[in-house]
Amino acid sequence: MKKVVTFGEILLRFSSNAGERLFQSQQIHTHFGGAEANVAVSLARFGHDVYFVSKVPNNPLGNEVEKHLKSHGVHTNFLLKGGERLGTYYVESGVGPRSPQVTYDRKYSSISQLALDEVDFEEVFAGASLYHVSGITAALAPSMRELVLLSLKKAKEFGVTTSFDFNYRAKLWSQQEAAEAIKLYLSYVDICSCGELDALYLLGIQKADDALEPSEKLQYYYDKIQQMYPNIRWMSSTFRGVVSASTNTLQGNVYQGGVLYQSKVYNIDQIVDRVGGGDAFAAGILHGILKGWNPDDIASFATAASVLKHTVYGDCNVFTEEEIEQFASSAPGKIVR
Amino acid sequence: MKKVVTFGEILLRFSSNAGERLFQSQQIHTHFGGAEANVAVSLARFGHDVYFVSKVPNNPLGNEVEKHLKSHGVHTNFLLKGGERLGTYYVESGVGPRSPQVTYDRKYSSISQLALDEVDFEEVFAGASLYHVSGITAALAPSMRELVLLSLKKAKEFGVTTSFDFNYRAKLWSQQEAAEAIKLYLSYVDICSCGELDALYLLGIQKADDALEPSEKLQYYYDKIQQMYPNIRWMSSTFRGVVSASTNTLQGNVYQGGVLYQSKVYNIDQIVDRVGGGDAFAAGILHGILKGWNPDDIASFATAASVLKHTVYGDCNVFTEEEIEQFASSAPGKIVR
Amino acid sequence: MKKVVTFGEILLRFSSNAGERLFQSQQIHTHFGGAEANVAVSLARFGHDVYFVSKVPNNPLGNEVEKHLKSHGVHTNFLLKGGERLGTYYVESGVGPRSPQVTYDRKYSSISQLALDEVDFEEVFAGASLYHVSGITAALAPSMRELVLLSLKKAKEFGVTTSFDFNYRAKLWSQQEAAEAIKLYLSYVDICSCGELDALYLLGIQKADDALEPSEKLQYYYDKIQQMYPNIRWMSSTFRGVVSASTNTLQGNVYQGGVLYQSKVYNIDQIVDRVGGGDAFAAGILHGILKGWNPDDIASFATAASVLKHTVYGDCNVFTEEEIEQFASSAPGKIVR
Amino acid sequence: MKKVVTFGEILLRFSSNAGERLFQSQQIHTHFGGAEANVAVSLARFGHDVYFVSKVPNNPLGNEVEKHLKSHGVHTNFLLKGGERLGTYYVESGVGPRSPQVTYDRKYSSISQLALDEVDFEEVFAGASLYHVSGITAALAPSMRELVLLSLKKAKEFGVTTSFDFNYRAKLWSQQEAAEAIKLYLSYVDICSCGELDALYLLGIQKADDALEPSEKLQYYYDKIQQMYPNIRWMSSTFRGVVSASTNTLQGNVYQGGVLYQSKVYNIDQIVDRVGGGDAFAAGILHGILKGWNPDDIASFATAASVLKHTVYGDCNVFTEEEIEQFASSAPGKIVR
Amino acid sequence: MKKVVTFGEILLRFSSNAGERLFQSQQIHTHFGGAEANVAVSLARFGHDVYFVSKVPNNPLGNEVEKHLKSHGVHTNFLLKGGERLGTYYVESGVGPRSPQVTYDRKYSSISQLALDEVDFEEVFAGASLYHVSGITAALAPSMRELVLLSLKKAKEFGVTTSFDFNYRAKLWSQQEAAEAIKLYLSYVDICSCGELDALYLLGIQKADDALEPSEKLQYYYDKIQQMYPNIRWMSSTFRGVVSASTNTLQGNVYQGGVLYQSKVYNIDQIVDRVGGGDAFAAGILHGILKGWNPDDIASFATAASVLKHTVYGDCNVFTEEEIEQFASSAPGKIVR
Amino acid sequence: MKKVVTFGEILLRFSSNAGERLFQSQQIHTHFGGAEANVAVSLARFGHDVYFVSKVPNNPLGNEVEKHLKSHGVHTNFLLKGGERLGTYYVESGVGPRSPQVTYDRKYSSISQLALDEVDFEEVFAGASLYHVSGITAALAPSMRELVLLSLKKAKEFGVTTSFDFNYRAKLWSQQEAAEAIKLYLSYVDICSCGELDALYLLGIQKADDALEPSEKLQYYYDKIQQMYPNIRWMSSTFRGVVSASTNTLQGNVYQGGVLYQSKVYNIDQIVDRVGGGDAFAAGILHGILKGWNPDDIASFATAASVLKHTVYGDCNVFTEEEIEQFASSAPGKIVR
Repeated sequence: MKKVVTFGEILLRFSSNAGERLFQSQQIHTHFGGAEANVAVSLARFGHDVYFVSKVPNNPLGNEVEKHLKSHGVHTNFLLKGGERLGTYYVESGVGPRSPQVTYDRKYSSISQLALDEVDFEEVFAGASLYHVSGITAALAPSMRELVLLSLKKAKEFGVTTSFDFNYRAKLWSQQEAAEAIKLYLSYVDICSCGELDALYLLGIQKADDALEPSEKLQYYYDKIQQMYPNIRWMSSTFRGVVSASTNTLQGNVYQGGVLYQSKVYNIDQIVDRVGGGDAFAAGILHGILKGWNPDDIASFATAASVLKHTVYGDCNVFTEEEIEQFASSAPGKIVR
Repeated sequence: MKKVVTFGEILLRFSSNAGERLFQSQQIHTHFGGAEANVAVSLARFGHDVYFVSKVPNNPLGNEVEKHLKSHGVHTNFLLKGGERLGTYYVESGVGPRSPQVTYDRKYSSISQLALDEVDFEEVFAGASLYHVSGITAALAPSMRELVLLSLKKAKEFGVTTSFDFNYRAKLWSQQEAAEAIKLYLSYVDICSCGELDALYLLGIQKADDALEPSEKLQYYYDKIQQMYPNIRWMSSTFRGVVSASTNTLQGNVYQGGVLYQSKVYNIDQIVDRVGGGDAFAAGILHGILKGWNPDDIASFATAASVLKHTVYGDCNVFTEEEIEQFASSAPGKIVR
Repeated sequence: MKKVVTFGEILLRFSSNAGERLFQSQQIHTHFGGAEANVAVSLARFGHDVYFVSKVPNNPLGNEVEKHLKSHGVHTNFLLKGGERLGTYYVESGVGPRSPQVTYDRKYSSISQLALDEVDFEEVFAGASLYHVSGITAALAPSMRELVLLSLKKAKEFGVTTSFDFNYRAKLWSQQEAAEAIKLYLSYVDICSCGELDALYLLGIQKADDALEPSEKLQYYYDKIQQMYPNIRWMSSTFRGVVSASTNTLQGNVYQGGVLYQSKVYNIDQIVDRVGGGDAFAAGILHGILKGWNPDDIASFATAASVLKHTVYGDCNVFTEEEIEQFASSAPGKIVR
Repeated sequence: MKKVVTFGEILLRFSSNAGERLFQSQQIHTHFGGAEANVAVSLARFGHDVYFVSKVPNNPLGNEVEKHLKSHGVHTNFLLKGGERLGTYYVESGVGPRSPQVTYDRKYSSISQLALDEVDFEEVFAGASLYHVSGITAALAPSMRELVLLSLKKAKEFGVTTSFDFNYRAKLWSQQEAAEAIKLYLSYVDICSCGELDALYLLGIQKADDALEPSEKLQYYYDKIQQMYPNIRWMSSTFRGVVSASTNTLQGNVYQGGVLYQSKVYNIDQIVDRVGGGDAFAAGILHGILKGWNPDDIASFATAASVLKHTVYGDCNVFTEEEIEQFASSAPGKIVR
Repeated sequence: MKKVVTFGEILLRFSSNAGERLFQSQQIHTHFGGAEANVAVSLARFGHDVYFVSKVPNNPLGNEVEKHLKSHGVHTNFLLKGGERLGTYYVESGVGPRSPQVTYDRKYSSISQLALDEVDFEEVFAGASLYHVSGITAALAPSMRELVLLSLKKAKEFGVTTSFDFNYRAKLWSQQEAAEAIKLYLSYVDICSCGELDALYLLGIQKADDALEPSEKLQYYYDKIQQMYPNIRWMSSTFRGVVSASTNTLQGNVYQGGVLYQSKVYNIDQIVDRVGGGDAFAAGILHGILKGWNPDDIASFATAASVLKHTVYGDCNVFTEEEIEQFASSAPGKIVR
Repeated sequence: MKKVVTFGEILLRFSSNAGERLFQSQQIHTHFGGAEANVAVSLARFGHDVYFVSKVPNNPLGNEVEKHLKSHGVHTNFLLKGGERLGTYYVESGVGPRSPQVTYDRKYSSISQLALDEVDFEEVFAGASLYHVSGITAALAPSMRELVLLSLKKAKEFGVTTSFDFNYRAKLWSQQEAAEAIKLYLSYVDICSCGELDALYLLGIQKADDALEPSEKLQYYYDKIQQMYPNIRWMSSTFRGVVSASTNTLQGNVYQGGVLYQSKVYNIDQIVDRVGGGDAFAAGILHGILKGWNPDDIASFATAASVLKHTVYGDCNVFTEEEIEQFASSAPGKIVR
């Protein structure tokens, strides 16, 4: 297989036990994760040759990040060591009507202080077939905004297919900052993950007619984006219905060649851990594209991958291609014996 | 803030793990709680100056009760030490269709043997603005019935607003005993928590027309009670729909000035621990009244407080006013990041 | 009470924690169970004098099986010790849409290598009133097929009522093998647990009209079976609706004297452990028959028993007759205090 | 085997996790136990036909006691149901230099209010070979003191060998009360468990010469007791060296025919749970006597049984005769593979 | 009681389970602690009126710190909210020969960026009787060095007794930096916690004769320090013998009026959590001084307090004065029942 | 680095919780391990390019073995899939004087039925520098005895350094079988792990003079073996002193060029999990030889590696070279902060 590259921050997550508030008991769950790191793990699990570009401190926490990635088969040749700290965040687990609550402690993280010339992107992209990055990486610091642009340009120079996920986080940058940066990026992007809110608030597209069905609205927005950036070959997103913190519905959308393809709608009636669900979907999309599947199959596979991720603890999608396909093609919940 | 007083029993609760019968494994969960103690904790968490009047044995269990109350900011100046034992009870946790089962071991508890003159209610009510007690306290012993009456009268002498929650428990006293006692109390009560069954079986009010909607029936009962006890300024209760031990619906009712105000209906689709849910509602009502909110806001706040309580382990409502208000005004279950 | 006998394999089950894949953490749950062993435990809990016939290795694992059975009051006089190993299996717990996955490691188990003359069935059946065995026992080895036939014949010689549960497992034998063997057995069977798939694929009955309701279809199949085997006095089965791994519906069916009796439909909205649910139903049926209840009550009791089993960990139905009856006659999920 | 009878209270014990104070976390361990109940379980595990005489409330807690006893093979024919409550107690686990702390809540327990004629001791002792009771049973109430005397007399009438363990508990009765009662009992006792403190403070024997070795002192006290009660055929006790709550030394003493036999000294360097250690020793002594072993072997077996008990959670000695003998005859701590 | 003030950082500690490396499993233990915060908690538990001066972020983590302190009865009037983050650190628990390993992530913490005028020390010290601070507070930032000096001077102006613990941490500042700062502080210090290494490397005292016993060496160093700073009225320290991470010996030293007083030597043979052991000792010393005890009793009490702290999880000494005194005066490890 | 090859069985281990008997609770710990697999993991962790040769079933258990090895960086190119089952075993954890107890269920495992030509050893050894195998592999089946001989010969043909660990297991083969096979192997072995018992009972060397010190005895046996097999360049073993299951002493021995080198003696006073301790030692020896260290440093490193392994759960030595060296050169148990 050819080389796949992702670039971003990896954090240490602390999650309370289900049914407990943060620090209600003296036990907390730990997981390593981050948008691009999770995509890297998924793609490595699917058999790709994946390299994760990042920077972590040169201490036991940084070493654990390295072990985490290696244990999932992700190459760490471009995982720099140095800087001051590893970003962390705390999740008070939601349950039923109570929402999960996130508190970040990621400022001053090693990657947020990455110098523009620390990563040798020429070496990184040599021989690569796919590069994935998200808006979060750009949001970490003004210098990171530049670096993401630089990396996308460099990737295209090397003939690498590029994938960009909007992943807008209001706590990291303003809509205006994000809009400015992302518009520059999109000219260099082949595969794009974005939704209605991105179209409205970051790309400034006019609101769709309220009378339209959700899928019709999405078709409208994707058409508009396609007109603005004809270079984009694939777009994707999910429709998530939040019944409660424990119950969501999920449907995947893939847009290709002007056509919107949709998966079936899943009812996830006992959510174990939804963190990483979006990254599992993104990785499913990328895997399908790398395998040359048709859009329908890609939507089906990526959605199934994301649904399964909701049923296990941790950020990483730990299911194989075969398991996901079997899940996508059988009745949910039935015992296999 | 002015002084708030509650008076009642606090017990040690043992609960089995979810999905286990009592003693199925050798681990059990422990919580301290009791109707008036839980209300005290909630009100202290909301910033009031709360005193809990009770009696616990002078041994490590009694000391733990004291620590528990203090750790939540409740004053223990009127927590007497002495007597023979701390009441306990066992809850086999319910799940899905299986109901929770309660077994009491509260006989001979220190408070149930409280002498009539052991508590100096003059000192207790000096400077107080609110006094809350429930039918459970009265049910503990014949002498306790007297003491509750005495305390309500004394409270009114001191110009203290009084709150009474019916909280009828058939295992503690008969309907006739309860009816006799409670009717005497109600003349001294400003705020009253009661529902249809209380009206029917304890106050002897004639059954409402079956064709009426639940809210119309409640309006009818509250009107009748209001006629009987014009001194009552507020009434409140909840409508609980028991779909299963894991799923309930909940709606809060507040009656003031002849008008019934109702909160929205919540679906609690993954109940963690429902013990204390009613006390969280009661405390929410009292907090709203103390703050001078309008009845609609009070119903909304108290119901949201109760719903949140269902999503955490333990008897105590460990959410702040701000958290409850944020919950009441946003979509349930949506991740905040 | 008279003697009840069951005959089959007992295995050690390893189950992952809910929300974890197999070996995702380094903790796993262990339970002993097997169709006939579970029925034995249920019936012993209901007060019958139950003997379980089987063979386990003469090592600490075999000793634990013995302790397990004795701790539930099952007699182990006919639990042989010897052979090479105890069968085991692994269950990756399902949750929400994700199905449970079963991996067997039961080959070469002691019972599968049982010699035809190792069990003295004359001693076993002396004084017995009921004998229960399922298709799994027959499927363990060709010699076991013979032994099951032999045991049924012997039981009838001793005037023992016989009960047979199809329990078809495709991983253990082919449909053809099963069909051949089971047809021989049915002439010696008084009580039979089977469903539509058994009728179609093992007994070769013609498919019912698709337009029929499920209960009408079942009536049709049971009528056909009754015609083929007039000796069968009772048939039973459940209708299970798999909404997800966490939510199932369940309804019990009992056929007697040409009439189909059905229990109410339960919604099990938070499944804890569904393994053993079918055995709890089977034991409920047998208990009702032994007690001489009417078919309606039997269907109600057996279904309630099975539903309760879904709400606790482990293969065994650890509820008493009284608890099951109380559950069957009250609203599900309501707190009892 | 012949019938063995024990008579006493069984309590529910709550123990904190190691390294935690009581209620430091919200999890606590539960075990059922009591001196005579533990001896009953040990002897049943060794293969005897054991009956435990007691009274527990007729509620889920009483039912659990019954299940507990039955699961270990103890007969519950003489386990009465009724009365007000099950006695409980709390153990704050000790570790290293910190001592375990016990808080009792056993007052008003069902057995403590047993009427003199509630137990039909004629039926109990019919066909029995051994009867065991301890001072704790007598200490529960003045009426219990009488009942113990009555039971010992009745046992001797039926030709039953009697065993009495002093088990003096200062929290239950005074030295004077105990001394008075026990002196009456000893004339009817064949096997007696007592030590130096019992001799000094309850039997009023003159203090031994301080210059003597511990074993010489014990010989002196046993000789004196033997002179006072020539009917006693066996005496036994342990020497426990408390290095810390985690490390104890243990040596067993058996006195028979005027000779003191001593086991080797064990170093228990990682105590898991010492509750029930004395009962395991007592049961080992009784088992050896019932088997007709020589005093040296009895001392060795009983001490090994007690040491093993210290290495597992719970009050009950869950080791078989064979396991204990293997332990007694091999080097401690060596892996067996 | 009069007011006690401590000033310092409070951190969130993450500790691995015993027998696991950091992140070996996905569960980690959390505790709040810090030298001066721990002393504050201990003194509040002993009944003093304690105020903790610090700064934490205005987010859920900061709120949890506030709850933690309040739950132990520490006043938070001077706990400022603001700044960027809460300091954290990770402890890989040691066991047997393997040492605990600490990794800090405390840079940029809110308190380390405290402005010189943010705390109103005049208000803080009004009515106070004791002020405690340690070298860690000074080491957090150059500005903090100044602030500690300023606070000590201000305390003396208000007639407050001052206590200073060297607590040298090489990871936070160099010996030269520490020496310069601490020498300035000591002229304003009444009670000082320091040991041989402090004397040698920070105060530049000449090495004691190697032939001396440890206690003689300490006497020598304390005499020297006393000569340099005649204002110091009390000095104290512990002798800790590290046999392994699980076994330590501990002896307390108190120096007053030129005389060295020593406690007995404890063997802590099963350490649960040694973090906070030094702070428990310091708080014991301060409590004894505030109570006006004699030096021998102070040494005994403080050492017992520290030993007990080693036997429970968490930074805080959760034992009462009465419990510590009972421990100090009885044999370690003996069951109390 | 050059290629390292190990060949053997990997099993699934089930261990009871500390302080519990097997199946006392319903939770059990799982670990994958096996002598040669553990050595492979250690060497991969030290940075070598390690290939593990084995066969596991083609089912989820086999897949988990593959994940386990890969997660530690071991190559699985030569991990065959097929056969009937994965070997398992059960360990009842020992504590204090109670020994750990092992029960095997490894018969019919996939590797034990490996055909002689299934592994292409020419491909395996191409480019390899070291090959390690132990007596356990040979003991699995008569055919495996041949295969081990064949593999050693083939390794020597390819110029690969060979390492053989006696690892005699009486439950797998007789002394005579082992002696016959091993004597054939030793002529092809460069590095040999064996001890006194191996010399006496498998190689038939005459017993050393009882008056000799243990190290003198070992020197004597190693001299004898060296004379018999002059091709052996390194021998090694450990002296283990079993104080209890919780406390062992450990000293490492390395023999090279006729000289015996010994590490210091460690006291491991709180053993967490001793399984894999010997393999950690073996891997330490091999790592030192591959690095060209002197025998003293090798003995020190290997022993430190083994000691550290005893302090963590699981079969695998999860410490880095740097961590082991730091441990070897510092005082055990001292906190590092």
